[in-house]
Amino acid sequence: MSRDIAWKNFWEDRVENMISFSDIEHAYSVLKPLVHKTPLLSSRTFNSITGNEVYFKAENFQRIGAFKFRGAYNKIASLTDAQRRAGVVAHSSGNHAQGVALAAKLFGIKATIVMPHDSVSSKVEGTKGYGAEVVFCGTTIDEREKKTDELIRQYGYTLIHPYNDPQLIAGQGTVVLEIFHDTKDLDYLFVPIGGGGLVSGCAVAAKNLFPNVRVIGVETEGANDAYQSFREKRIVKLTKVNTIADGMRTSSVGPLNFEIIMKYVDDVITISDDDILPMMKFFFERMKIVVEPTGAVAPAAVMKNSLRMQGKKICAVISGGNIDPALLRQIA
Amino acid sequence: MSRDIAWKNFWEDRVENMISFSDIEHAYSVLKPLVHKTPLLSSRTFNSITGNEVYFKAENFQRIGAFKFRGAYNKIASLTDAQRRAGVVAHSSGNHAQGVALAAKLFGIKATIVMPHDSVSSKVEGTKGYGAEVVFCGTTIDEREKKTDELIRQYGYTLIHPYNDPQLIAGQGTVVLEIFHDTKDLDYLFVPIGGGGLVSGCAVAAKNLFPNVRVIGVETEGANDAYQSFREKRIVKLTKVNTIADGMRTSSVGPLNFEIIMKYVDDVITISDDDILPMMKFFFERMKIVVEPTGAVAPAAVMKNSLRMQGKKICAVISGGNIDPALLRQIA
Repeated sequence: MSRDIAWKNFWEDRVENMISFSDIEHAYSVLKPLVHKTPLLSSRTFNSITGNEVYFKAENFQRIGAFKFRGAYNKIASLTDAQRRAGVVAHSSGNHAQGVALAAKLFGIKATIVMPHDSVSSKVEGTKGYGAEVVFCGTTIDEREKKTDELIRQYGYTLIHPYNDPQLIAGQGTVVLEIFHDTKDLDYLFVPIGGGGLVSGCAVAAKNLFPNVRVIGVETEGANDAYQSFREKRIVKLTKVNTIADGMRTSSVGPLNFEIIMKYVDDVITISDDDILPMMKFFFERMKIVVEPTGAVAPAAVMKNSLRMQGKKICAVISGGNIDPALLRQIA
Repeated sequence: MSRDIAWKNFWEDRVENMISFSDIEHAYSVLKPLVHKTPLLSSRTFNSITGNEVYFKAENFQRIGAFKFRGAYNKIASLTDAQRRAGVVAHSSGNHAQGVALAAKLFGIKATIVMPHDSVSSKVEGTKGYGAEVVFCGTTIDEREKKTDELIRQYGYTLIHPYNDPQLIAGQGTVVLEIFHDTKDLDYLFVPIGGGGLVSGCAVAAKNLFPNVRVIGVETEGANDAYQSFREKRIVKLTKVNTIADGMRTSSVGPLNFEIIMKYVDDVITISDDDILPMMKFFFERMKIVVEPTGAVAPAAVMKNSLRMQGKKICAVISGGNIDPALLRQIA
C-alpha cells in the first residue's frame, strides 16, 4: 500500500479544480433533506476476528437500497430548468437506474432508462415503479451507449452518466461527510470500485476530513480494471469481466474518476468472488442486514487484510443491498 | 379492541406491586451499558400503504439477535452471589437459550440449557458458542421441564424462566424505555405474544410512559392461547400449536404474564401464518433487514388492521432476526 510521490504531484496538478471538497459540501446541502443519513454499524464479532475497530457505512439503507441516489439527485439538481424539462436518460442494469428514476420522480421530470433486455426483472420493475420509462437494448455496453446516444439526439435528453461526472461524483462523496458526522478519526477507508464514481467522491472528501486516513479502493479479481490502471498509471480497459459483484462489471473507470483515484486513493486492491459470499452470510446471520455482493466487497477486503492491520480504526462502505432472490437462496 | 372496566379493576388489584414501572427503570440502569440501543426504523412505502406513521423497534439488532438478552441478563443480575456461583439453567429451543447463555457468560457463571434433541443445529451451536452447556431431552414441553427439574435438584441451579418471572419481565420492558427515548407519543404499540414475557414488560412500561397508547398483543392463529385467554378471562392452554412463528409455540402464557396482560393490554388479536412471509419479504427486499417469523408478527398485524387505523402513530416491535436458512430459501 505505498505511493509514488512524484506521480502523486503529477496527478495533483491535473485534477486541481476538477472537483473540490466544497463541491461535496454543496452537494450535501442539496441532498441532506432527501437522503437517509445511513448508520455506521459495527459488530463485536467482526472486530474481535479482525483485531480492528471496524465500522460499516450502511448505504444498503439508502433510498433505492444503494448510494446511487445521492449522485443522481445532485446531478439532476445541477441541470438548468430547460434541461430538466427536456428530461434525462441513463443506461444501467442496476442501482444507477433506480437512483436516476427516483431522483427524476422527485423533480417531477421525465427519465428514460436504457436497460439490457436480459436485466433482472426485479430491477426493471423497481425502475418502472419510480415512474421511469424503460427502453430495452442489447446486452453489450456498446449497444447500450448507441441506444442512449440515439435517444439524446432524438429527444434532447441530458445524460446522467453512472460515474464519469463531477456533480455525480460530488453527490457520492457525501457518504463520507456523514461518516465524519459520526466519527472524527479514521486510519483506513475501504471503498468498492465499479466505474469509480463512489470511490472518487469518497476519496476527495476523506482526504479533506480525515488528515491521516488511507483510502483503499477494492475490486474483485474478475473485474480488476482499476487495480491494473492504478499500477500501470493509465486507464486499462478489460475486454471481459467475470464477477458475482454486478456493480463491478464495468470494463474501465472513467477518465475523471481515474485522475481522482490517482491523486487521492492510496491503494487499489482486489479480493476474489469466493470472499464475497461468506461476508454476505456474516452480515445476514450475525448482523441481520441484507448486503448485495458489491456491497460486501469492501468489508471482505478488511477481513482479508486484517493480519496486516491491527488495532486500526477502519470504515468500509457497504454500497448497497439490492440482492437477486436467486443469489439469496445460494447464501441461505 | 374494547375493554371491560369492571374486569380491569379486578385485575388491577391483583397485579398491584407484582411488577412496577420502577422495576423496569431499574432494569434499564442495569442493562444500559450492555444492551444495544436498537433503532426505530420506518419505511416511506409501509407508511404510504398503511396510511399511518409506523415505527419498527428493531430488536433483531439486539445482542444474540433478539430481545431475549434483556430479560435474561436482568434476571441473572438480580440473583445472589451464591445463586450465581451455583449456576443457572433454562429450557428453550430458541432465542431464550442464547440470551441466557450470553448473560451467564458476561457474569462469568455456568449456564446449562436444556434443548429438545430436534433443535435447529444453528441454535444449538449459537448457544454452545456463548459457552453454555447444552443438555438434550425429548421434544415435548413436559420432557423439557422434567429434565430441567432434575438438574435443579441435582446441582442447585437457578431456573431462568423464559417468561413467567418478574425480573425477566422488567428486563423485556426496557424495550419500551428505548422507544420512549426516540419518540414521545404513540397511539398504538403492537407486541408479539409467545409466553407473554415481552408483552407484559412492554405493556407496563407503555402505560406509564405513553398516556394514550393502546397496547395490542399479537399472536398467530395456530398458537392463539393468549387470544383465547384474553377473551375467556382465564388461562387457556392449547394441546397443540401449529405456526411458522417458532417464538409463539408456547401452549399458554404464564400466570404472571396473564395477570399483567389482563391489566395493561388493550386487546389481543391474531394474524395467520400467511401474513408472515410477505412481511418478512418486505423487510428483506425493501428495508434490507433480516426478520424472523415471530419478529414479523406485530408488523404484519399493523398491515392487516390498517384499514381500521388511519393517520395513527404506531410502533410495532420486531422481536428478533434469527431465521433458519431453510426458511430463508423459502422467502427468497
